[in-house]
Parts: sequence; C-alpha cells; structure tokens
Amino acid sequence: MEFNLHSENNTAGKPIRCKAAVARKAGEPLVIEEIEVAPPKAWEVRIKILCTSLCHSDVTIWKMAAGPIAFFPRIFGHEAAGVVESVGENVVEVKEGDFVLPTFQSNCGECRDCKSQKGNACSKFPVPFYGGMPRDGTSRFTDMNGQTIHHFFSVSSFSEYTVVDICHVVKMNLEIPTDKACLLSCGVTTGVGAACKFAQVEEGSTVAIFGLGAVGLAVAEGARICKASRIIGVDLNPDKFEIGKNFGITEFINPASCGEKSVSQVIEEMTDGGADYCFECIGLASIMADAFNSSRQGGGKTVVLGVEMHGSPLSISPYQILRGRTVMGCMFGGLKPKSELSSYVQKYLDHELNLDAFITHEVNFKDINQAFDLLHQGKSLRCIIWMDKIENGK
Amino acid sequence: MEFNLHSENNTAGKPIRCKAAVARKAGEPLVIEEIEVAPPKAWEVRIKILCTSLCHSDVTIWKMAAGPIAFFPRIFGHEAAGVVESVGENVVEVKEGDFVLPTFQSNCGECRDCKSQKGNACSKFPVPFYGGMPRDGTSRFTDMNGQTIHHFFSVSSFSEYTVVDICHVVKMNLEIPTDKACLLSCGVTTGVGAACKFAQVEEGSTVAIFGLGAVGLAVAEGARICKASRIIGVDLNPDKFEIGKNFGITEFINPASCGEKSVSQVIEEMTDGGADYCFECIGLASIMADAFNSSRQGGGKTVVLGVEMHGSPLSISPYQILRGRTVMGCMFGGLKPKSELSSYVQKYLDHELNLDAFITHEVNFKDINQAFDLLHQGKSLRCIIWMDKIENGK
Repeated sequence: MEFNLHSENNTAGKPIRCKAAVARKAGEPLVIEEIEVAPPKAWEVRIKILCTSLCHSDVTIWKMAAGPIAFFPRIFGHEAAGVVESVGENVVEVKEGDFVLPTFQSNCGECRDCKSQKGNACSKFPVPFYGGMPRDGTSRFTDMNGQTIHHFFSVSSFSEYTVVDICHVVKMNLEIPTDKACLLSCGVTTGVGAACKFAQVEEGSTVAIFGLGAVGLAVAEGARICKASRIIGVDLNPDKFEIGKNFGITEFINPASCGEKSVSQVIEEMTDGGADYCFECIGLASIMADAFNSSRQGGGKTVVLGVEMHGSPLSISPYQILRGRTVMGCMFGGLKPKSELSSYVQKYLDHELNLDAFITHEVNFKDINQAFDLLHQGKSLRCIIWMDKIENGK
Repeated sequence: MEFNLHSENNTAGKPIRCKAAVARKAGEPLVIEEIEVAPPKAWEVRIKILCTSLCHSDVTIWKMAAGPIAFFPRIFGHEAAGVVESVGENVVEVKEGDFVLPTFQSNCGECRDCKSQKGNACSKFPVPFYGGMPRDGTSRFTDMNGQTIHHFFSVSSFSEYTVVDICHVVKMNLEIPTDKACLLSCGVTTGVGAACKFAQVEEGSTVAIFGLGAVGLAVAEGARICKASRIIGVDLNPDKFEIGKNFGITEFINPASCGEKSVSQVIEEMTDGGADYCFECIGLASIMADAFNSSRQGGGKTVVLGVEMHGSPLSISPYQILRGRTVMGCMFGGLKPKSELSSYVQKYLDHELNLDAFITHEVNFKDINQAFDLLHQGKSLRCIIWMDKIENGK
C-alpha cells in the first residue's frame, strides 16, 4: 500500500472542494453534498479520508436536537483511516502522504496527564464535545452557501477531506490494511484496550460483559487475548451469543430470560460470588449498577466504557464498595494514542488480535445512511464506508 | 513484657466470671456488671483483654435501637489487645499465654479470597454484623440472671474476658507495647493500610482526606510514610489542622469556610485539577461524592473507608468515571490480618510509623463511659481503656 499524494498535490494551502455527508437536522438522513474544506491552520493536518465507519456515539449525538453538545449542520464520523494531504505550520510529526488515524482522544504529549503513566486523559484537549477545532473553536467546513458546518469529536470523517489537530492524529504502520486500521480509531481499541491495558484482566479470571456491540465484543476479544477462563456476555439480542463466540464469549445471559432473578444474581451464582471483571459497554447508569452488583467482593472491578447520554448518575452501595469492589472507567481503552496504539497494530499483524470479524458490512460513501440503518437494527458490528467508491462512481 | 497465665491457669474448660461493660439499651451508658464467659468451643480462643479502645463503629451501632444489626444486651468493643487464656479444640495457631489481637476482619486463610492476592475479604466469615459467634451464631456471654448477652463484630472487647474465633485472632510480636498494639486492631490499620497497601500512594502525589478522626489521621500518617507531597485535610473542626500536622497534614480546608465554593472546587483549584488520592473517612455518601469530585481525571482514585450507616447510595457521574477516575474501598486497610499486620508492627518498632500520637486519653475500665463522651465531643482520637486498672481498684 502506497500513498503518493506528493507528486500530484497542488492543493496544499488552498481550500478543497469535495463531497461530505452532512447532518442538516438531528436524526434526519445525512445529505451528500459539496463542501469546501479550508487549509489546515498551525498545528493542524488536512487528511484525505480513505475509509470511515460508524460508531454508536455518532448515532447518539446525531439524534440530539438540542443541548450543549448538539450542533447542526455538522459532519459526523470519528472512526477513520486516511492519508495526510497537507499540514499547517508547526506540524513536524506527520507529513504529506503519511498514513494516519484521526482519534477523538487527544494526546498532546506535553501536559501533566500525557506525561503521567497513570492514564490517557489529555488535559490540553479533554473530550471534544464542542463543534469546532480544538484550538480556536472555529470550523474548517463551509457549504456552498457559505454556511459554516460544525465539526464532530475533533475528527469529522464523513467527508472526503477533513482537518484534524495534530494532537488527534496518529501515524500508522503501513502494513495494516486500511479498513482494519480504521477499526482501531475508536471502538475496537476502546474494548480491547480496556480489557488488556486498563483493567489488566488476568489469566484464569472471570469476565462479564454488558452489551455485545462492537465495543463489548472487543472487550471479549481482549479478555480472550488475556486468557480469561470465562467470558460471560449479557445482551437482549439472542443472536449475539453465536456472534460472540467468534470473540471468545463462553457463556451468554439474556436478561429477558432470567425469570425472577436479576442478571447480577445469575452471574453471582454462575461464578460463586461474582465476576472478577464486569464491563459496561452500553451507556446506561442502571446497567452500570447491574455490572457493579455482578462483581465479586475482594477485588472485583467494574469498568465503565459506555457514555451515559441521559445524564443519569450511577448509584451504588457504599457498603459493597467497602467490601473491596472497584469502579473505574476510561475512554479509548485507557491507551495513549500516539505511543500505545502501535502495539495493537502489531498484535493484529501477529494474528493475535482478530479485527476482521468486526467488519460485517461495507458500503460506498454515497450509501452512508445504510450504515446508520444497519447499526440501528443491530445487524452490523462495523460497517466500513469506503470513500473512494464514490469517486469511482462519480 | 511477659504473659505467664500458664502457671496459674485453672480456668481452662470452665466458665469465667468477670466484669464486662454491658450495653443494655441503645445509646444508654454501659453498665459494668458481672458476667459469665463460657469456655471456647472448637476453633475458638478465650482472651483476657489487656486494653481496649473505642472506635466510631462501636458508637454508631450502640446508638441503633432497631434494625437488622441492633442486638441488646450486647458487649461492644472491637479494638483491643489481650493474652490467650485458653483455646478450644482444633486451635493450634495460638496457645495459652500468647499475646494476641482480636480483629473484626476475618482471615480464615483457606477461602478463595484469603488465598487470592487481590484483597483481604474473607468469604468464610464476611463482615460480622451478627450478634453471636461466627460459626454457630450463639453467644458465650450470660449475665447473672442467665440472660444471653450478644457479641459485637466477633470481638466484644469491653469485657475482661471474651471468646473470639481463631479466624479473628492474630498473634502479636511481644516487642510492641500493649496499647500501641491495640491501635492496630482496627482504626489505625484501616487508615495506614488504605494509603500504603490498598491505594499505594506514590511519592510526590497529592492526597485529600475527608474527616480527620483517627482513621483519617492514620491515612495522613500512611500518606506521609509514602512521601506524598501534599496531604490536604478536610474537617469541620478547625482544631484538627494543628492536630493533623503531627500526622503529616500539610494543608487544611474547613468546609464551613469555603464560601460559595464547594470543597471539591477548592481542592481542584489547589491541585490544578484534583487530588491524586481522595479518602473518605466519615461514612456519609454525600462526602464520598465530594471526595470523588475532588479527584483528578486520568488516574484519580477515591478510596471509601467510612461505613455508610444511613444506607444512602453513593451517586456519582458516569462521565467523570469515564474520564479515568476510580472509586474503590476496603476494610481493615486492605490488609490480611494474619500475614500483613506484622509489617506495621515492624514499622512502629523501626520508628517509621507514629502510633503514640493517636493515644490522646487513657481511662480505667470502670470509667469506660468517659471514652464515649470524649469521642462524641471530638476531644479524643483514641482513648485507651485499661482493664487491669479496675482489677487493681476492686
């Protein structure tokens, strides 16, 4: 795989006209339209997106008609792989033609948190819930009427070209196929990293996973890599057990089939006291509490991965905490994108990490709304949206 | 210090009549009266208490007139040091004359949790909230009218003699003075262990402690030993700052003097984002939430040590967990009593651990109600109650 934009690049420093899938109104199908993408400012990188995929967070926020994080029109998308078209002033880490992943998770490398060994929170650019670029809050996107289009999660990958701050760009190993790299840009890394790096699941331990979407299955994949002895999947969709087996799920609980017992009672009985690790991969405070109540005393860990979008608090028993239970959470699997993502690329290349099975569908960019339908209906794990197909079909 | 009960021991196998401080009714002063202490059954140890001290948990449960953990008449007390008077069948770990600590924290050594390296929860005898002995639920205490008197926390040290299950007995190094050993039986170990062993406070880190009773000050002492750079104490009693300096407190916040700011806002500003470690040492869910909100993103840990006796749930923001914050909790400092307490004895003998300053008062057993008054009024950290004084005064 080679990316040779250099010889043909006469776009650097100029606006680029290209196609983007614009969300004009909350919850309404995206509209493929011509937009203008401004050149990158200082510390920014303009990226030609090769492929992108749809994550639940896109859908959740796309549905929000109002509130502090709802901005329209907007270009969604934050899982993607691409190639650097041009860079702004001060950018030396990547150059034109480099294969890169944009990541919603910032990694400035200079703040106290980036320098700490403890986690991956970047205090320079915390979570990008705003609608513009992280440094100046402005947008690089305008439509053909001159109207500003908002950014999303500092990525906005549902566009042939996008502009991303260098703190949100990771240079990638060229050996990994583009679509597999794309998966590592958010969901799969979130799950695999949470199990392997953040929670550090040990060999022989018991794991319960609440919600078997791509993130939950990636947790299973991580727990399988860590040699957990039992990986219990919890989901209302009974089809997920068969799918989950591909990712290491060994047992399955459908909460609708538990009769009078709660899921936590069933897990407590199955595991003689509760699971060593419980992962919440949905984003509901009530399920986080179920996960906590399913963890064992004396070391049981509950890991929150889902983003609670209703604003509900997590309510748990202090006494059950005192009995040696821990609640913890992370974004992006607890990984620092720039320094720690490469080990997962290597695990894929070494055939330790199964990425292929996460890709259940592929569509052309022009059919991006199909990806929304598939995710909505619970039919897809990840649907790869190929940007070049629309170019081919132009 | 020598304990030679052996030569004079003709009590083994027989009931012993002795003095005990009996709680007849919730919240009413203890009554020193003659009781009969049955011989130890299999796996049990009868202990002659040398000294005992009063912990907040005694007071909290002594005040409860009703509910599943309220039993009267009852012999309270669970911080003590003593000497083995006799042992029941199957007890080989200690023998007559051994210097021992009774501990409310069980350590059977054989259950999955005792064998695990992860924590100190013992699944054989979880927390002894019941009113009898752990194995058969019955009592070894009767009053002079033949009425059964209930046990407390598997210890009941407000008696010249008590019977304790071997899982709740730790053999002690004779080099440590009796009153200092007594402190390690609950409160001081809870705090020092939580900082040093459980949370593993690192050199240079920032620590905030909510509630500067003996447990909170023991956390400070532990954080000092771990070389935390800043140890912020939070308490409504302004006298606690001067007292706290003896245990390493470097800064003080009185919540009543924060004006319109919350304590967590003040701590966030003081520490540029929140403390690395926040300890809740009071037992109020609202303070646990304050502690959580005072912890920094990307690795901040909130450690719950206080027992929430109102049954209130802890309510926290899932989003703040996702930002890399952890909530954890433990009893008895996360230490396994039988194998891990000795290192704290050694730290005392090596002049690394300051125990002396926790002893602010001493009283004779007959004046035990004074210890309640002193603790209630916030005047004492630990009041040592000497059993032999009453014998001398008989």
